[in-house]
Amino acid sequence: MNGGAGESSYAKNSLVQKKVISMTKPITEAAITELIISSSSSSSKAKTFCMAELGCSSGPNTLFVAMDFVKIVSQLCRKHGHDELPEFQIHLNDLPGNDFNSIFKSLAHSFHAQLLQEMGASGAGGSAPYYFLSGVPGSFYSRLFAAKSLHFVHSSYSLMWLSKVPEGLEMNRANIYIASTTPASVINAYYEQFQRDFSTFLRCRSEEVVDGGKMVLTLLGRQSESASSKECCYIWELLALSLKEMVSQGLIEEEKLGSFNIPQYTPSLSELKTEVEKEGSFCINSLEASEITWAACGDSGFYSPQYSGKGDDGYNVATCMRSVAEPLLVEHFGELVIDHLFEIYRNILSDRMSKEDTKFVNVTVSLTRKE
Amino acid sequence: MNGGAGESSYAKNSLVQKKVISMTKPITEAAITELIISSSSSSSKAKTFCMAELGCSSGPNTLFVAMDFVKIVSQLCRKHGHDELPEFQIHLNDLPGNDFNSIFKSLAHSFHAQLLQEMGASGAGGSAPYYFLSGVPGSFYSRLFAAKSLHFVHSSYSLMWLSKVPEGLEMNRANIYIASTTPASVINAYYEQFQRDFSTFLRCRSEEVVDGGKMVLTLLGRQSESASSKECCYIWELLALSLKEMVSQGLIEEEKLGSFNIPQYTPSLSELKTEVEKEGSFCINSLEASEITWAACGDSGFYSPQYSGKGDDGYNVATCMRSVAEPLLVEHFGELVIDHLFEIYRNILSDRMSKEDTKFVNVTVSLTRKE
Repeated sequence: MNGGAGESSYAKNSLVQKKVISMTKPITEAAITELIISSSSSSSKAKTFCMAELGCSSGPNTLFVAMDFVKIVSQLCRKHGHDELPEFQIHLNDLPGNDFNSIFKSLAHSFHAQLLQEMGASGAGGSAPYYFLSGVPGSFYSRLFAAKSLHFVHSSYSLMWLSKVPEGLEMNRANIYIASTTPASVINAYYEQFQRDFSTFLRCRSEEVVDGGKMVLTLLGRQSESASSKECCYIWELLALSLKEMVSQGLIEEEKLGSFNIPQYTPSLSELKTEVEKEGSFCINSLEASEITWAACGDSGFYSPQYSGKGDDGYNVATCMRSVAEPLLVEHFGELVIDHLFEIYRNILSDRMSKEDTKFVNVTVSLTRKE
Repeated sequence: MNGGAGESSYAKNSLVQKKVISMTKPITEAAITELIISSSSSSSKAKTFCMAELGCSSGPNTLFVAMDFVKIVSQLCRKHGHDELPEFQIHLNDLPGNDFNSIFKSLAHSFHAQLLQEMGASGAGGSAPYYFLSGVPGSFYSRLFAAKSLHFVHSSYSLMWLSKVPEGLEMNRANIYIASTTPASVINAYYEQFQRDFSTFLRCRSEEVVDGGKMVLTLLGRQSESASSKECCYIWELLALSLKEMVSQGLIEEEKLGSFNIPQYTPSLSELKTEVEKEGSFCINSLEASEITWAACGDSGFYSPQYSGKGDDGYNVATCMRSVAEPLLVEHFGELVIDHLFEIYRNILSDRMSKEDTKFVNVTVSLTRKE
């Protein structure tokens, strides 16, 4: 992710991620509601509800679900006649390079102001309950929290990122991700890395989540069983096309492009289901796919198919992808190529979006920690 | 505190603070040992030991006590035949403006390397136990952690800082802190602010610390009952003298100096005791004063009276004070005066240190949360 708050920052270009969190809100709310209802009937009532936002980044989405969590739990506790509101522990996790200083200096302040306002408006009582924010640096492919300490885990648009570029991609030199021409051995290398990473993720969380605790995870994925399906690969194929254009202009060495690969995997619903069942600690409450148009990267595209392909959609999608992928690209190709690369990418995107129906596919799984 | 890692940064100039933590180590170790022994005999053994470093800053002292905590608890658990090592939750707290990014990016990494090394060397077993670092932004004069979640709280050289400059200091215009010429009403204003802040601190921690949990707090203080005693005020009187010199040179307006005050209070042992007893949640295991020469701000001064007053002690003390007080001074007087001010201060310090016996007084209190 690009840090800071500049034009290419993730903070300024995370609209599609926000829309996806909104789209999956009913699933999140159902999970939180079930958590509180089962907790209310338990003999040992929790006095502190603890949630973790994994891959929280630093921007408008960082505390988006935390706000809902505090509001919903407070409302339900009032409704179920709890004498006093519980306290809330909110863990914000991302890699150590994330801009936690920005979260603490500005986002935390506006969170408090908004919470006061919403608690007043929601009928959950005018005063905000005690809540405690903490920043937790580290990879979610390792243990991050104390055993049996989390009631609710949320993560959106993070878990498709692998812990590293898989080994054995030598046969994929013409591509930067799985593409239509990618051989089966390369697809398998990606899939196996996903399996290792996702099962590690589940094993770590199974230690940390309390019995009956909930996880709602949304990641980029696909509806097809084919890993090279256009729905998940096209966005990267067009970036590869842009990079090849720069090779043909002599601005990037062909060799350099050949060794570049995106550490991502966009699983199908059944691939996700298989890993959850194999690990065995969680049961699946719901597992579903949803779609969002690429144009949703801009203000006009949300649930508005009549807008798709119009206006400056190419720019919006290119900027969104830049805010996410720039650090990876800079590390491999250097800073100098970036502006020009995203100009080319923008033009290609604009062209394709005007002619084709272009969408991201999200998969969302809601899980309960078995007792 | 000055952030970053430059010549005037706190990270580069926190030697005296480190020495004080080392001096008080026996008290810290005794508290941790008692915690584990009483926890071992309890029917519900803790699986996660949770500590908080309050006013952790960002530098070599940030994780200094955390390292001891993990080592000592691990050794004791092995010795008392625990089947498996507990997990550790380490909360690092400071104000939201603290440089948490630096802690997460570099200090956390070296902590891990050092822990592995020390666990191997200490006979506590070669592998490091699970530990989880988190950054907790906020004032320790408010709730920061979930109820009954902390086993051990440590804070050093932080609690003498008040939550704000007290009101009612108009009669103290010639000074920047309590000084020999300070009227009783002003001393009282400082003392009342300390009472409010310290009792708030104790009340917040009493909610957060488990029954039988420990706190070891060290702050700048005094042995005399007089708040204007030279032992605690002299260091600021000499800074006031430096500021007056700049007024006489026409570099600072007299009016500006008149309205500047340091938000600090250096309590006596009995003042500290009174607040703890008044609040009532903690009992006092030990309460003692110690001394450290100003020269300990440099490499030569630690327990070495023969060095005091020699070498470049004035420079070391001035730089140490600058790393702590520069943000306050810049906010009030602007950036331009700083270099010159600390040149003057250095010369005054060198002169006095060569003629007088100059020391800081620390007060350290070890507390147990009553059951």
